[in-house]
Amino acid sequence: MKQRIAIQGHEGSYHSIAANRFFGEDIELVPCDTFAEAFLELDNGRADFALLAIENSLYGSINQVYDLLLKYRFWICGEVYLRVEHCLIGLPGTSIKQLKEVHSQAEALAQCETYLETELAHVDRVEHHDTAASVTDIKRWNDPTKAAIASEAAAKLHGLEILAQGIETNKANYTRFVALTRTPTEATDSDKTSLVLITDHQPGALYRALGSFADRNISLSKLQSRPIIGEAWHYMFYVDVLADQSSPAMTTALRELEQQKCDVTVLGSYRAGEQTPLSQQAAATNHLSA
Amino acid sequence: MKQRIAIQGHEGSYHSIAANRFFGEDIELVPCDTFAEAFLELDNGRADFALLAIENSLYGSINQVYDLLLKYRFWICGEVYLRVEHCLIGLPGTSIKQLKEVHSQAEALAQCETYLETELAHVDRVEHHDTAASVTDIKRWNDPTKAAIASEAAAKLHGLEILAQGIETNKANYTRFVALTRTPTEATDSDKTSLVLITDHQPGALYRALGSFADRNISLSKLQSRPIIGEAWHYMFYVDVLADQSSPAMTTALRELEQQKCDVTVLGSYRAGEQTPLSQQAAATNHLSA
Repeated sequence: MKQRIAIQGHEGSYHSIAANRFFGEDIELVPCDTFAEAFLELDNGRADFALLAIENSLYGSINQVYDLLLKYRFWICGEVYLRVEHCLIGLPGTSIKQLKEVHSQAEALAQCETYLETELAHVDRVEHHDTAASVTDIKRWNDPTKAAIASEAAAKLHGLEILAQGIETNKANYTRFVALTRTPTEATDSDKTSLVLITDHQPGALYRALGSFADRNISLSKLQSRPIIGEAWHYMFYVDVLADQSSPAMTTALRELEQQKCDVTVLGSYRAGEQTPLSQQAAATNHLSA
Repeated sequence: MKQRIAIQGHEGSYHSIAANRFFGEDIELVPCDTFAEAFLELDNGRADFALLAIENSLYGSINQVYDLLLKYRFWICGEVYLRVEHCLIGLPGTSIKQLKEVHSQAEALAQCETYLETELAHVDRVEHHDTAASVTDIKRWNDPTKAAIASEAAAKLHGLEILAQGIETNKANYTRFVALTRTPTEATDSDKTSLVLITDHQPGALYRALGSFADRNISLSKLQSRPIIGEAWHYMFYVDVLADQSSPAMTTALRELEQQKCDVTVLGSYRAGEQTPLSQQAAATNHLSA
């Protein structure tokens, strides 16, 4: 039986490309309209895994996914990075000059702002809930005055034509996706751990918590604060560190956090995904601080 | 001449209530449909100040405002906290049973989810771009089957009836607003400073940066990471600390950050706003870490 992977979006979406890259081609996609629905499908067993975007290099963190991660306490078993390259997609033989409407997800339209303002200034923008679904609609409508913005894969899937490629304003447009399972798995090649920290409410608490990692040369790759619901202006911290949760350094760090009365939830320990770096930013991309 | 204050939203909105609380009643509101428009109105001089929401205790940070703050480099000259209490508002004499549609901003509708599901299960939800504008529409339509969700102030402004009060699911619903000016001002009673840190990309850099504050007993009240555009997976940190920027402790801390090759931008130094605490969480609310 094929592994069933819940994603946000449909076949041909960036989520589906990321799912194929992580789980291979021989999978069964469980397409969901929202992130909440994808968590539900994993929870009720209609999916074996979920593969969901958690942050984008231009937009930042997707807070809804962070909040749902803590609500469901699923296990992060891996991650994958994808370069987002938007294409203008229309019916075969369409010329850009005859276009009157361009359809896509709001974020994708926003990411192509410069192209839309210069090359498609005469064209109306229409928002869809999914990039791939907008391509399906273009095919169904069979109207050469309409085009969509989506991935190259979505165009190929529906046999439509790529009218323009790489139309995103900023080329450093990457999305990070995480793979989720219902129960924790032990990965032998794990070198990254995601956790949530709630420090006690003493001045210096976050500084001391980060010291537990820094003192053992454990690098942070991400730190994201989120409000603690019901406790106005208190925050929790989602932290990604570059170490396996069972390594000696991490074991000591976690023990020290406990001594600091820091509430720690490990969300997953997994192999860090390979990043597709821009020309200049190679080896250093994953390190920022600790 | 009255001070002209740019806000997101219209008269009767939570923004307008916050503006009156901060600047007093004798002001001229410059209503804007979007946050970007409010920044623009301050930039082009059609407003003397802007008063804008920056975070909510349930929703978290409003990233767009953080990004615009850095883009325009305006000065934060103050802050104000507002308890968000939603009301169901209809034409005078309306009974809840006859309602068929409830109108409001998407966030306000979401914050009243439990009430809508239990008491108004038979009613359709319609999204508006502004809570106060939905009240204006209810008055204009003069249709007793339609109601809006907005502030008590919006109901009073239009002479409409409050059909139900305090219908938000979570009572710990507060919004923090910041007041902005074009040029830095020196406040004599300042005890809080907002800044943006970009650390160098060495492991431990964030830890060391926070140490500059912790070593001088300067408390952090907020730490928010945002992506650095064009440098995938590198982050900057918006930090609020409880100290005046010119205090001896802060002067030393800022000098130390400079020695650490940390790029620091001070966004403002101002008097910390008074928080309206929930029963249990009194004095400690503003401290979490450092």
